[in-house]
Amino acid sequence: MFITFEGGEGTGKSTQIEILNNWLTSRNIPTVLTREPGGTPIAEEIRSIFNNLPTETMDAITELLLVYAARRQHVENLIKPALIANKFVLSDRFYDSSWVYQGYVRGIDKKHLIEMDKLVCAQVVPDLTFLFDCDVKVALDRVCDRKKAKSRIDQESTRFHDQVREGFLKRAKENSERFVVVNTTEASEVDISKIVIKGVKERISFDNRP
Amino acid sequence: MFITFEGGEGTGKSTQIEILNNWLTSRNIPTVLTREPGGTPIAEEIRSIFNNLPTETMDAITELLLVYAARRQHVENLIKPALIANKFVLSDRFYDSSWVYQGYVRGIDKKHLIEMDKLVCAQVVPDLTFLFDCDVKVALDRVCDRKKAKSRIDQESTRFHDQVREGFLKRAKENSERFVVVNTTEASEVDISKIVIKGVKERISFDNRP
Repeated sequence: MFITFEGGEGTGKSTQIEILNNWLTSRNIPTVLTREPGGTPIAEEIRSIFNNLPTETMDAITELLLVYAARRQHVENLIKPALIANKFVLSDRFYDSSWVYQGYVRGIDKKHLIEMDKLVCAQVVPDLTFLFDCDVKVALDRVCDRKKAKSRIDQESTRFHDQVREGFLKRAKENSERFVVVNTTEASEVDISKIVIKGVKERISFDNRP
Repeated sequence: MFITFEGGEGTGKSTQIEILNNWLTSRNIPTVLTREPGGTPIAEEIRSIFNNLPTETMDAITELLLVYAARRQHVENLIKPALIANKFVLSDRFYDSSWVYQGYVRGIDKKHLIEMDKLVCAQVVPDLTFLFDCDVKVALDRVCDRKKAKSRIDQESTRFHDQVREGFLKRAKENSERFVVVNTTEASEVDISKIVIKGVKERISFDNRP
């Protein structure tokens, strides 16, 4: 099963991935915890270019090609082998992030995202996607508390982060069969984790598992 | 005027770019000397990922996306502004290298290269392309003499370099209106530079230049 976690910065993705991972592991379900851009050595190198503070303006099309280059390594060298080995793959972001950041926010035409998905992801589609939806101010305050060094994306305007939020909600609506939207603005970690685990339970038969 | 130099490793490109650059500069023609992958800070960072010795297998589609990501920065932030400023741009490699390395040799379908060129290069097309064609053994001996550290591409088999040579000759044939093929196996630097300068002279009117 391939489960992805989507949402803007500071919406609570990484905490919840850890909680779900512990829950699955304690049930002897083999998991792989990963993230995008990244997840393999080459993809992590690409991530660092992507997050660096600008030495020059990064064009939106460059961004698109870099995230999909990283995704290709991730799909071929980590996700596919793990799924074949019957593991649960939990990924902090996947292609929905590209549809939102490069498509909806940066304005790259849908047809290029469709082409990229075909070229890069082949048959790999998430079985279940959690969208963590959170008030932008609350989310950004969390990021500020957490990080000393900000990435290129963190330094974008509030308008940018509002658009990211809108874009994710739109994407979830268009793919409602696999999305579970969780409002994380005021919910506690425990409450959110209950929704996540419920979402996973509803979609798997654990009977066949050791 | 946008002039590109193509060919395998060790075929003599960089020496001849330098000679042509000096020749143009001595005639008060403003030039920009550049290379691919690279030419801007972000593109040079991508180059280093591209040339690193493998920490993991790099997928052919990843290669394609990385070179075109670098090319996008190169086109937008260096080549276009230089051409608008009426400079001569001399580039060590451009998209013909992708058609050969990622297309002809790695087997990526033409349609993806056509899509990439449309997405990334917009209207930027070389006015003149020199293909330096050289016996593979002679070229590889030159690379060995020159370099202590080999890149990922240098370590490919002779079969690979034979395919590169074939691919470039095919590409030149299909785009003969802008290609000048120079056999550099036995020719001296001076003889090659005469052919290059003749090729440039035939295509420009110097009368309008200061």
